[in-house]
Order: sequence, then C-alpha cells, then structure tokens
Amino acid sequence: MSTATLPLSPLPHIPAEVRCAQDYEDLARHFIAAPSLAYIAGGCGRDSSVLANRMALEELAIVPRLLRDLKAGHTRLDLLGRSLSHPLLLAPVAYQTLVHPRGELETARGAAAMEAALIVSTLASHTLEAIAAQGPGERWFQLYFQPDRGVTEDLVRRAEASGYQVLVVTLDASIKTPSLSALKAGFEMPEQVRAVNLDPYPMPPPIQLMRGQSRIFQGVMAFAPGWDDLAWLVDRSRLPVVVKGVLHPDDARRLKAMGVAGQVVSNHGGRALDGAVASVRLLPRVRAAVGEHYPLLVDGGVRSGADVFRMLALGADAVLLGRLQLYALAVAGSLGVAHMLKLLREELELCMAQAGCASLADIRQDMIYRERDEA
Amino acid sequence: MSTATLPLSPLPHIPAEVRCAQDYEDLARHFIAAPSLAYIAGGCGRDSSVLANRMALEELAIVPRLLRDLKAGHTRLDLLGRSLSHPLLLAPVAYQTLVHPRGELETARGAAAMEAALIVSTLASHTLEAIAAQGPGERWFQLYFQPDRGVTEDLVRRAEASGYQVLVVTLDASIKTPSLSALKAGFEMPEQVRAVNLDPYPMPPPIQLMRGQSRIFQGVMAFAPGWDDLAWLVDRSRLPVVVKGVLHPDDARRLKAMGVAGQVVSNHGGRALDGAVASVRLLPRVRAAVGEHYPLLVDGGVRSGADVFRMLALGADAVLLGRLQLYALAVAGSLGVAHMLKLLREELELCMAQAGCASLADIRQDMIYRERDEA
Amino acid sequence: MSTATLPLSPLPHIPAEVRCAQDYEDLARHFIAAPSLAYIAGGCGRDSSVLANRMALEELAIVPRLLRDLKAGHTRLDLLGRSLSHPLLLAPVAYQTLVHPRGELETARGAAAMEAALIVSTLASHTLEAIAAQGPGERWFQLYFQPDRGVTEDLVRRAEASGYQVLVVTLDASIKTPSLSALKAGFEMPEQVRAVNLDPYPMPPPIQLMRGQSRIFQGVMAFAPGWDDLAWLVDRSRLPVVVKGVLHPDDARRLKAMGVAGQVVSNHGGRALDGAVASVRLLPRVRAAVGEHYPLLVDGGVRSGADVFRMLALGADAVLLGRLQLYALAVAGSLGVAHMLKLLREELELCMAQAGCASLADIRQDMIYRERDEA
Amino acid sequence: MSTATLPLSPLPHIPAEVRCAQDYEDLARHFIAAPSLAYIAGGCGRDSSVLANRMALEELAIVPRLLRDLKAGHTRLDLLGRSLSHPLLLAPVAYQTLVHPRGELETARGAAAMEAALIVSTLASHTLEAIAAQGPGERWFQLYFQPDRGVTEDLVRRAEASGYQVLVVTLDASIKTPSLSALKAGFEMPEQVRAVNLDPYPMPPPIQLMRGQSRIFQGVMAFAPGWDDLAWLVDRSRLPVVVKGVLHPDDARRLKAMGVAGQVVSNHGGRALDGAVASVRLLPRVRAAVGEHYPLLVDGGVRSGADVFRMLALGADAVLLGRLQLYALAVAGSLGVAHMLKLLREELELCMAQAGCASLADIRQDMIYRERDEA
Repeated sequence: MSTATLPLSPLPHIPAEVRCAQDYEDLARHFIAAPSLAYIAGGCGRDSSVLANRMALEELAIVPRLLRDLKAGHTRLDLLGRSLSHPLLLAPVAYQTLVHPRGELETARGAAAMEAALIVSTLASHTLEAIAAQGPGERWFQLYFQPDRGVTEDLVRRAEASGYQVLVVTLDASIKTPSLSALKAGFEMPEQVRAVNLDPYPMPPPIQLMRGQSRIFQGVMAFAPGWDDLAWLVDRSRLPVVVKGVLHPDDARRLKAMGVAGQVVSNHGGRALDGAVASVRLLPRVRAAVGEHYPLLVDGGVRSGADVFRMLALGADAVLLGRLQLYALAVAGSLGVAHMLKLLREELELCMAQAGCASLADIRQDMIYRERDEA
Repeated sequence: MSTATLPLSPLPHIPAEVRCAQDYEDLARHFIAAPSLAYIAGGCGRDSSVLANRMALEELAIVPRLLRDLKAGHTRLDLLGRSLSHPLLLAPVAYQTLVHPRGELETARGAAAMEAALIVSTLASHTLEAIAAQGPGERWFQLYFQPDRGVTEDLVRRAEASGYQVLVVTLDASIKTPSLSALKAGFEMPEQVRAVNLDPYPMPPPIQLMRGQSRIFQGVMAFAPGWDDLAWLVDRSRLPVVVKGVLHPDDARRLKAMGVAGQVVSNHGGRALDGAVASVRLLPRVRAAVGEHYPLLVDGGVRSGADVFRMLALGADAVLLGRLQLYALAVAGSLGVAHMLKLLREELELCMAQAGCASLADIRQDMIYRERDEA
Repeated sequence: MSTATLPLSPLPHIPAEVRCAQDYEDLARHFIAAPSLAYIAGGCGRDSSVLANRMALEELAIVPRLLRDLKAGHTRLDLLGRSLSHPLLLAPVAYQTLVHPRGELETARGAAAMEAALIVSTLASHTLEAIAAQGPGERWFQLYFQPDRGVTEDLVRRAEASGYQVLVVTLDASIKTPSLSALKAGFEMPEQVRAVNLDPYPMPPPIQLMRGQSRIFQGVMAFAPGWDDLAWLVDRSRLPVVVKGVLHPDDARRLKAMGVAGQVVSNHGGRALDGAVASVRLLPRVRAAVGEHYPLLVDGGVRSGADVFRMLALGADAVLLGRLQLYALAVAGSLGVAHMLKLLREELELCMAQAGCASLADIRQDMIYRERDEA
Repeated sequence: MSTATLPLSPLPHIPAEVRCAQDYEDLARHFIAAPSLAYIAGGCGRDSSVLANRMALEELAIVPRLLRDLKAGHTRLDLLGRSLSHPLLLAPVAYQTLVHPRGELETARGAAAMEAALIVSTLASHTLEAIAAQGPGERWFQLYFQPDRGVTEDLVRRAEASGYQVLVVTLDASIKTPSLSALKAGFEMPEQVRAVNLDPYPMPPPIQLMRGQSRIFQGVMAFAPGWDDLAWLVDRSRLPVVVKGVLHPDDARRLKAMGVAGQVVSNHGGRALDGAVASVRLLPRVRAAVGEHYPLLVDGGVRSGADVFRMLALGADAVLLGRLQLYALAVAGSLGVAHMLKLLREELELCMAQAGCASLADIRQDMIYRERDEA
C-alpha cells in the first residue's frame, strides 16, 4: 500500500481556529491524506446525491418565533427506551483508522464525553468489544446482514454481550464503490485498515455465475437480505431493531408494521446510489407514513445546528453525523469529536432559542419555509 | 486593540462617482477597514440569510402601469401618528463610531436633512441624549430589554425625556456573533467603541451554570424577555411601542392583539440566525395576519428604490435601511447619509412614476410578478 | 466630445463569419466603441431587466410536431390593415448615427430590402422626412408625447405627410438614464448625435420646482401624458394608433376599449425600469386580456428565430427587434440589417417547419413547454 | 479536406481508466479530432437542447426500495416481437467512419457481443449490407424518407433482404446543420465520409425557387414526408414500423392510431431544433397518450445506468444511445462499444437492485422524486 493514504498526525488539543462544527470539515484537509479525503468527502459515482443532500437542506429557511419562555430549555429526548441528552448521534462509519491511528477507540471516548450515542459499524477497524471497553456510554451496534445466518446471529450476540443497547440494521446498498473522484485520486483502502469484527468468520464461498446470469443480481446481490431475513432478525434480537436506509414511505409503513422499533431515513450519505434522492426530501413523507409517535432518525448532509433543526422540524427525532465525525476525529481525536458535538449542540440550542423552542417537541414543521411555498 | 479596525477618513463632500444609492456600498471598501467591513457586510455564520434577503428581492419583478395622473405625486405617509415625508427610515444600527469618528451624531444630521426618521440603537456609541441634541428631527428609540426592569424602564424614560417619539423594541436574537468571514478577517470591536447608553448602570451579575444546564438556555438566554415583559413595557411606555424582529404570522397576530402599535418584519439583516428566512418572503403573510390598516415596517436587503417599491407592494408601510446607512456614513458622514436618502427617495419616486403610483397607497401587490406565478 | 464614442468603420459587405442572426451581437464589439456598446447592450440601473428578458425566453422549450403539410408554408400576416411578408419589425431605436455614419438611412434601406416594417423613432438622428425619402417601404412612426400638444400634433402631421402608415406611441418610461455600466464606461451621447426631428420646435420652458415638490413627480414627469392625452391623439391621428410599453393586462384592456388599434408588450428592452418584469412573462396575460383577434406585438430579448417563435406561441402577432438591428447596422450598414433579417426569418421558418406550422396562425401555445409545467 | 477532422488511432484494448460508461465521454477527446468532437458533442445552434436533455435527467431523483427479492433479477424484455437481453439500444448515428476507420462495422460487432440491438442509419458510412454481413445480431434499419418513393421503397427492401428486423423512420428534423461551436471549430464533413447507402440512386433534381418562395418551406422542406407518406410506408413495409422523433402527445396518439408499431420520444439529441424541449420532459405525457402496453423508446442525454432507470421509470420501454456509442467506438472500436454497453447494463442493474426492481416491469414512476413535487 501507499503511505499516501495513511492519516497525518492529529492534534493533541482543540484547534483554536474552529468556531463552528463545520470548521472541522475545512480543517480536515490538513489531517487526512488527499486520496482518503476524496474517498470520505465523496459519495459514489459523480457525487450527485452528496450534493443533493446539502442543497436540499440549504433551501429550507427557518422562521423564528418570539418571546417564548426558554428558562427550562433543554435538548433531552427519550428514544427507543433510551434517555438521551441531545438528538445528535454518531453515525456508523467504517474503517476509522483510515483517519486516526486509534480510530473508533477515540471516537468512543469523544462520544462518551458529550453523552452522544455512538453507532458502531460492523466494518469498524477495531472490534466491537474493544470499543465497548472504552468505558460507559450509549452505544448501538450497526449490523450488515452476512451471507451466513449463523455469522449474523453471532455478531448480534457479541453486541448484546458487550452491552450495546440498540441494533441498527443497514438495509440500503449492498454494493458500494468509491466515487469517481476518489478513484481518480488513487484511493485504495490500506491493507491494515480492515473489518476486524469479521476476522473470526470464514470467508463466504465465491459465487459461480452461470452463463446468462448477472454479476449484479445473481452475484453481488445473491446474499442480499429479504423481508424474511429481517423478520428472523427482529425475532432473534434481544435489542430493539432499527432499520437504516429507508426512503420510500411504503417501505417505512411495512417496516413499522412488522415490528421494527425505529428507522433511519438515509441515502447513506450519497454513497449508495448516485442519483438517489436527498434524505431530507423524503423525510416528511416517511414521517406521515409512520405517524407521530414512532422513532425516526435521519442523516445526510448535516453540517450545523440549523441543519439539525431543519431535520427535526421536518419530522426526525434525532440525526446521525457521519462525515463531521470523521473530520473531527482526524483533526483532534476524541477531543475533536467531543468538541464538534459540543459546538453542534450549542448551535442547535441557539437555533431552538431563536425559534422559541424550549424542547425538541416544540420544533414544528411550520417553522420551515420552503422556496416553493406561496408567499 | 488593532488600529486596523478604526475608520478611515470620510470625505468632506458628496463623491462624484455615486450615481445611485447602492453605489455607496461599492465605495465603502475604501472608507471602512477590511475587518470592520467584513463584520458589517456579513450576517452571522456563513451569511446564508444575508444572501437570502437579496435573492428574495431580486426575484420580484415589477409590473409598470401606464398613463396615470402623477401631477400630485408624493411619498408622504402617516405612520404611528407621525407625518413622514417618505417611507425611508434609518434602522437602529449599533456602534457607528466604528465607521465614522462622530458616528451617530453625523447620521442624525443627515437624517434630519432629508426628514428621515432615525431609529437610535440602545447600543449606539453616542448617548441618546447627545444624538437628540443634534437638533430637531424625527427620532425613535430602539430598546433592548435589559436584565433589570429598572434599567429597562430608565432607558425608556430617558428616551421620552429626550423627545424620542416612538419606542422600537427588538425581540429577535438575544445572541449575536460576528459572521465567520468577519472572524476570519480578524474583526474585534475596538475598546473605545462601546454602548455608552448603558454606562450608568451596573453590570448584571455573572450567571453561574449548574451541572447539566445549557450555556444557551440557562446562560445567555436567561434574561430573554417574555410576553409578560412586553406587556409590562407596553403598559409603562408613554410612547407607542413597535416590535422589531417579527417573521411568523402567529406572532404578528398576538402582538397586535396585545396592543403593540406596529411591527417590523425583520431577520435582523441576516445577523441573528444563519438560515433564517428572508424577511420579504414572510411579509405578505404577516400583512395578511395583521390586516390592512396596521403599521407594518420591514428591513432586509434593501439597496434601491425598486427594492423599497417591492417591499411596499408586498405589504410594508415603510422600510428600514441598515447597511446602506453605515456605508454612506463611512463615505461622507452626514452628507453621505443625506445624499444616499435623497438618491433612494428619487429612485423610489421614479419607480412609482413608472408603475403609475402617485402615492404610496397606490402601490399594490398586483404590480409584483413572481417567477413562480403562472403565466 | 470624445472620439472614443464615435462609430468605427462598418464593412462594405456581409461578414463571412455570421451564421445566425445572433452572431451580429458577438461581432458588434469590433464595430462599436466600447462606451457606446455598453450603452446599447445595457438597460438601466444594474441591467436586471435586460437579463430577465433573455432568461424568460430561454426557459421556454419548444415542442415540435410531425408530418404536417408545409408545402404552402409562408410567414405572411395582415396586421393593422397592412400586409406584411413576415412578423419581424424593426423597433424604434433612437440616435442610430451613434453606430453608423448614415444611421437610420441605412437601416431604412436594409429594412426595405427585406420588406420589414421599420418603426422610426421620434429621437432618430435623421429627420423622418429624410428617412422616408429612402424609397418605398413599410414605415411606421414612433411618437413620444411632447410637452406641447401643438408640437405633438405637428409630428403626427409630418409623419402622415411623409407616408408613414402607423403611429406607435411609446407610453412607458418618460425618464431614461444610461445603465451604470454605460456610465462607468464613460458613455456620453456625442453632441452631433441628436434628435433632429425636434429641431424646429422651441425648447419647453424649464420647470421651477417649489419647496417640497418632487424632482420626479412635479419635475421630469410634469408633462407625462394621461389617458385624456391619448384619447386626444387617437381622435386626431389619421393613422391607426398603436401603444408601446404595455405590461399590465388591465392597461391592455382599457387601451383596447378606448380605440387603440394595437399594442406592443414591452419593458423597453430593460431600459425603462431596472426591475421591470420580462415582457414575455406578461404576454400570455395581455393576450388573454385583449382577446384573440387584436393586434399584439412584443419586444424584449429576441435573438433568434426560436425566440420569435416563442413570442408568437405565447400570443404575439409580430415582434420588434431593437439591439439586433443596431448591431447589424454597425457591422455592415444596410447590408447587415437586411442580412440579419434574412437570417432571422429563415431561423423562424426553420422553427415553424420543425413545429409543423405552415403559417403563423398555426403557432400555438401548446407548442411551448415551461419548466414549471408538470410532466 | 483537412486531415484535422480524421479520427486518431483507436486503442486495441479496453482502457484501464474507464470505470463507468460516461468515462468514455471524458476519454473521447484524445481519440476524436477537435472539430469532429465539437460536431458530435454539440447539437445545433447554441446547443441549448443538448444541455436541456442533461439537466432534465439530473433533476430526477431516484427513490430506492428495500428488501425486495432480486434473486431472479434480469433485464430482459419483449419489444416489437423481439426478445432483448436488455433495454439498451444503439441509436442510429450517421457517418461513423468520422471517428473510427471501420466505423459501423466495429459498432455492429460490439453490439452483437453484448446482444444489443443496433439501429443502422440511412446515412451510415458503410452499406447496410456490409454491416449486416458482420454476423448475427439484432439489427434495425433507420430510414429517412427520400424525395423519390421508389428510392425509399428500395431502401426498405434492401433492409428486409439483409435481415433487418424493425424499420425505424425518423420524422423530426429534415434540416440539420452543425452547431455554432462545431462551425467555429472549423468542422467540415470529410469527403470520404459519406452516405454510401444512397450511392445507387440518382441525386434528386435541384429545387428552383420562384420569387417570393421560401428557401425553407418550398426549398429544403419540399420533400418532407406527410401523413400519407407514412401511411404508404406502413402499408408497404414487411417490418414493423417505429417512428422516431415524437414529442407531442397528440402526434403520439395519431401515430398509434394509424398502425405505427412503436415510437421513439426524441429531440434528436438536441441536433434538430435549438430550443426543443428535453425528450424526458415529454416522456410521461407521451406514455399517457399511448397507454400502458405500447412500445415506447426514448433517447436524449443518457450517460449512466441511473439515466436509463429514470427514462424507464417515466414511461420508456427501452433507451437509445447516441453519443456514448460514438465515444466508445472512437476510443476502442468494437471492444469499446461492447465495454460501454456492459458497464451501462451493470449500472442499470445496480440501480434496479437498489430500487428493489427484479425486472424492468418493476421500475415505476413513484421511484422518481422531482424537485417540484411537494414534500
């Protein structure tokens, strides 16, 4: 492997020039090798859905309210039976040693410092057990279905045994390739950065395609889970099961009906299908589909407290942070992650204050003005 | 402090190259130190609401009318019991010695020369009494609620005693920070530029946060006013009370019902909440909420007589000028302020003439064509 | 005067590199002094309505039709009792010696060669009589109301006596100033380029404003015509009277009702009011207001046969060409004007052929698809 | 002729840097002479409809579905009585020796390798017989009506005799000129690149225009076909007749009623009328006009599997590839064409997989989210 993709040295302190959460994005270029940064910042294909996520958020204008009583203001919420200090979760992000030598271990400590729920990826570059050993904290486990049900179940059992509190099953996008810009930048995943959680299990047998079969349908999608697999998982898991990757309201309705405990509206940060709709665009329809009191999370393009506010106003209970998490980790390890969360939380609180919202429940859709609305 | 943020020398005459009010904006870069200009031109955060104000105005096309009788044409209006020569008011802008050594004193003289109502800020860098002493003129006082009601009331009494005619209470945005671009430009408010109106009063005691409390909700917002505070003020003030910072129609409705004499639709020039809706977007809804005969003002992005016309057509009785005021002040002191007002008034009159409006009352919403309207 | 604003030498032949009418616009920079070009290309203020005209046309997509019989195809029309070979008219453009030594005389010969109606401006830099003396041709006279009715009537009589066939009264925009870009380029009208048609008449007396009067309303607009003036003119003119500068449907309705023979939907090429709506946007509403069989013309932003088609599809009977006329005149005099008209006519015919229109009457609104239409 | 327009040497292998079908477009500049590339990439006029095709596709966001059973996934379809492996057809593209010495012969071999239907142009630079002799494969013949019915019929008979399976009659755009950018780049068709299929036939007699006749209507359109010509052709052809160039729903309805077997919604890749609507915009209306079970194809701007998916979702049964075909041919001959088709097919399959579509019939309009849809 080329050393060009290895992380540069993170800072041992919070950088003075960071004034808002998004500043970590600007700063990250000094701490992440260019090909890796292209891989992280990009989505897939020509990155059109990455851009779509950002554009869709930008066009949502916020309508402030006046004179509301904010003295008891807070950002607490109950979600999936958990009491959270705030609605900022760290999205499952794979392979974090790509940007920091200690990777997920640092992220876990930063999250714990700010009482943020961390969703640990199946594809983490440290074991879920090692991450759990970083001390107490809200931790959820993100699961990718494995070709073998036994392996899948073993991952669930390990998560349960290590104290993970929620199971987040990612259902979108079994196939992911780096974006064209990452490929052109020469990105390759370094050998030593790998999905160590899967080390104990045998590799699935290679798929032999017959003449006329499709490399996609009968090949890479051969082990894609179906509704029966999900039902099996919901049945076997002792943890509440949340599905990540929902965009179509009909899927949301059916998932809720089958006992899924919550859902994450997501286009996988634009990394799954180049051309996929921005997640925030479908959020109101998905909320309408599942009804008012059902755990709904979202990710895709969040860079500021105002973005969090927009997501909550359009129906989300909480948001997941992907790229910001990696950028802060790269810049200053656990300190960076904690600082980014602190900034983002205060930005959210400031936005809530200006919109007269003393609690998350006060954030309502009529505080958003869309360009297409009539004047 | 760095001398870099001190004002450069204003001209003793009207600059020949200024042909329209907005030209003062272009010229100001030669008269305001770069960090200060970044602070003034910017809003907060990434300046998205500053841009939104401008974009929203630009997309409103004007539909001229023909052959109307304009011989008795004028721009007079009665507003809040005051007779005004025209609907151009100078918005409350703090700390004006940042751009001109004599600051608000010059502004007051320029305003008087053009019979423009000046709204003096609580945070003026000259005392409200010294500004009032600049001679006769329409002057209103802008009030920020202070942590102590006694202090708040004393400010009101001082304004009444000095002959101010209207009280404008700003309710948006208790928290304001310079925009990221101003911070990156190294802007800091010079020590000698300060809110001298508050000199007589003791500093409020520092807030001690308890563990788990929010620096925003229980900290900086601790003394934010509520509906009862406003009711108290309306009751105590001998002057008509106007509320500035309204965007949501429901707030407008409630404010009118509680006896507030008028309102300013405003997102604080994009300085309060980055992501806030452009004020002109909500103007028609607020007008609809308060009904036809109720004093409604607006600010946000006005650079030309056509912009004033657009604001009036969508429901405003008058407009407030913020940045243009500072730019003209910086360029040529009171002469600049008066000249800018004269240009803007003539631009408005020209626009009215082309739209066949002999008086402000003739300016109607059907003279505006929006891109989204069907053809 | 500076020689910098004088025209450069026009070509004695059609330039080989011109392949479509709009190419004259690209080429004109080599034949018109920069300040003059800024004056011509610009509108007024910041040129926003110039841009609006172009943008509004660009977003109108054409829906072709198939297999129609085009063997008898032609572009003839009857308009205001005149038989025209095609719907391309030369708009009244003042001061043409600014771009060509022989100015309107050349334009008239180019128009005649292509059987295009030429509308001669009151502010032409050759007399209407001299222009008429260029030989036979369809010629209309554009009239600005003069402060003195006697002068106005004399202009009408001169036009009638010289064989002009239609009277086009421009009602928008009594006040016009060069755009800011033209002023910044140093444009001034050369002394020898002037409105010679007005030479015989005394200058109107200067207006003395009283204190409190407006330089706009009681000054420059003092002699602006009213509905009674127009009624007087319609009554006195032996020629059919067409009104130019209509945008609001209510004005169109009233003008038709009072006996005006036809109308030109126009924002004066963006030269009258910076911020005025694009003329093509209001065209469908004006057509709806005046009904199907009433002469309606339009100008504003036409650069190609497709643009002409768009205008006709949205309700115009014919279009006026302003800037293209000047550009072609500057490049190659009468040859340029004729060539530009020939190209434009063929572009229109080509567009009609592809849309299956054998005559102008076949061009219908359902051949236009607007972005905002639902799919 | 200038050698500047001759093709550069194509590669004898698939280029390593091509990762998606659209990469052939980027690479083509190294294999096609600049003037020829301008001719191919451009449309006509100022290329506005070329851009419109791309923009219209880009704004269609895809809404993925979850957990669908894809094990039997495939892209097969029955179309016009033909069994096709996938819905990717090679559009009729004229003069292919412009970009590759063996031109259409290579294209035919590449198409056959990927089981793609190839539509051979009347204006091919190899004879339809020579192309047919490249071996078995799905081949359709594209017909332009000739001035002489005997010639037209002879072309049909030759196609039938050579084993072509479908007749595609192009009805848009009898007149086509290179775009302005191609003309400015100096493009001229090389003499040795010509429509050899027409070699056996006499040149049609030159048209003599009478005074007052139009070079367009009575000249170049003189032999344009009418409804009776099409009826004659449908009657004479032993092959199913498909019409290419449909955009207006009324035309689609009438064509279906008269027995046309299928239609291609197309603006000729933006090459026919500069200003024509993007084909995908009208696709839903045309589908609505012809009903559910009627062969409908489309072209215009397709660069990726996601674009194919968008077209199918909005009503197409299959899509035609024009420029991608030429780019791949130029880069690597038949290998390039086959590789491009393979990539595009896999991109489509990947998109289908993510949208939960196991067959083309599963691709539905509710998987597309348009910006203008309400949220």
